[in-house]
Amino acid sequence: MIARKIPIQKKVLIENDRLAGVIRAELTERGIISLNLVSSPGSGKTSLLEKTIGALGTEINMAVIAGDVQTENDADRLKRAGGKIVWPVVTGGACHLDARMVGRVLDELNLNGLDILFIENVGNLVCPSNYDLGEDMKVILVSVTEGDDKPLKYPAMFRKSSVMIINKIDLRDYCEFDIERVKENALRINGGLRIFELSCRTGEGLDSWFDWLKKLSRNP
Amino acid sequence: MIARKIPIQKKVLIENDRLAGVIRAELTERGIISLNLVSSPGSGKTSLLEKTIGALGTEINMAVIAGDVQTENDADRLKRAGGKIVWPVVTGGACHLDARMVGRVLDELNLNGLDILFIENVGNLVCPSNYDLGEDMKVILVSVTEGDDKPLKYPAMFRKSSVMIINKIDLRDYCEFDIERVKENALRINGGLRIFELSCRTGEGLDSWFDWLKKLSRNP
Repeated sequence: MIARKIPIQKKVLIENDRLAGVIRAELTERGIISLNLVSSPGSGKTSLLEKTIGALGTEINMAVIAGDVQTENDADRLKRAGGKIVWPVVTGGACHLDARMVGRVLDELNLNGLDILFIENVGNLVCPSNYDLGEDMKVILVSVTEGDDKPLKYPAMFRKSSVMIINKIDLRDYCEFDIERVKENALRINGGLRIFELSCRTGEGLDSWFDWLKKLSRNP
Repeated sequence: MIARKIPIQKKVLIENDRLAGVIRAELTERGIISLNLVSSPGSGKTSLLEKTIGALGTEINMAVIAGDVQTENDADRLKRAGGKIVWPVVTGGACHLDARMVGRVLDELNLNGLDILFIENVGNLVCPSNYDLGEDMKVILVSVTEGDDKPLKYPAMFRKSSVMIINKIDLRDYCEFDIERVKENALRINGGLRIFELSCRTGEGLDSWFDWLKKLSRNP
């Protein structure tokens, strides 16, 4: 038998995937839907969760794990928005959440009666794509102020996502951003993407997102 | 003597810093100023370089190393904008440029008579902060569509930058972004930051940036 050397980084990912599997099994058994929100910094993950908590907070039992490199700003915003279960995770420099961080939070949380778990990842379009957190789906946000070639430039994250949200559509007339082109570019990489177009600022398009979450929480 | 174990990641960074030192020495000896542009995806690094090439291309000898995870889109845009020396580096999944990638390009480039080398890093506010590329200065871009707490949330990159560019100021009336607050937050982390406020789209504020580059290229 030949002993094969596995590079450290690969070992880390294997262990991460194992843990993610444990998390997924636990959440599935409890009927909890989990969504991992990923995007560039500033695309509007926290704003979307603020609006979602505001609109659905009495109807759906939601928890949020709010990841950030530094500060608990996002978690504080979500608590102010009415979030009942909001758990900050400060990575202290790390560029992504990993399954261990999520697992640690879940050990502390009361999961009874929970419908949806949102995991707000670190704002980063590259590294979080490698780390399965045990979620049911990744939800990727892009905003119309960012450039419509993002799916082509950061394909891994779009490939691994189930949902794409195009945010800040209220600014579409002020940006050289072609919404049809970003959709086309994204679908070329991942034909199965469910797409929402909305503006957290004006509220336009949010209802479709809310309706989808409601359906999801009824039929996990 | 006690043999001490140095973690792999630390070894990688030590080797990177050594190489960056070699690059810095070479560029300094040749009187070439080098600027490492960092930001979130979509903050406008490529747009800023397009405008800079358009305005100063005949006056200053510039080269650009355009880093991206996938595609050579940015390099193609910069060539179309009139860039004479534009070198794409596709990292193939890696979330940052490193000194080895830059060193390899410099081995190929004709550096004679060059005034300024721009290195357009991968769009990522976290990981590139750890990798010295041998540049004279890091230039960090933020855009008014991103949220004014970015310096607090991604402090390492702001701490290591010498210049901060606030881009897309033409959109300031449509965003909940307080320009004074982002400056205050950034200066709290790094009091030595030189700040430019501009819009690559309308051209507002670009002249100060151009003037600074002109001075820099005359007095490297």
